[in-house]
Amino acid sequence: MILLRTHIGHSLRATRVAQGRTLRDVAKSARVSLGYLSEVERGQKEASSELLNAICLALEISLGHVLAEVASQVAALETPHLTVVEDAA
Amino acid sequence: MILLRTHIGHSLRATRVAQGRTLRDVAKSARVSLGYLSEVERGQKEASSELLNAICLALEISLGHVLAEVASQVAALETPHLTVVEDAA
Repeated sequence: MILLRTHIGHSLRATRVAQGRTLRDVAKSARVSLGYLSEVERGQKEASSELLNAICLALEISLGHVLAEVASQVAALETPHLTVVEDAA
Repeated sequence: MILLRTHIGHSLRATRVAQGRTLRDVAKSARVSLGYLSEVERGQKEASSELLNAICLALEISLGHVLAEVASQVAALETPHLTVVEDAA
């Protein structure tokens, strides 16, 4: 099942890792606990809208950017894939 | 403050109203309580990822579609607006 929190978490984590920052650093900057941020990144917890904004601010990215990325990922997963079936005959 | 739940709620509500459907109808189809759906639509409650999927299914729209719309709305709000200042001189 496609879950919004999974894709938001992946996007936030990818941004943090690309910035070479630690969970501790971003959690401190966003004023959330390290455990909370870790759970959000792993898609185990729904981030509240307020804390999602705080995390985006800590990562210096816009919410719109995260959502556009997530929308694109979700849309790609929702599109039925073509399956190539080899003809054995 | 731009809140994700506000924009998700607005998008879901606009779709339901455009379809001429009632809260009761969509809530029943999504197997959520009418009060829950109403709060989500008004941006007063964060929809869990699972229930967001159920509401999208009930409205026969894709999650990707909702997210693309929300991403676009949020990005537009995040873009600094030009302010026209009349010169009084």
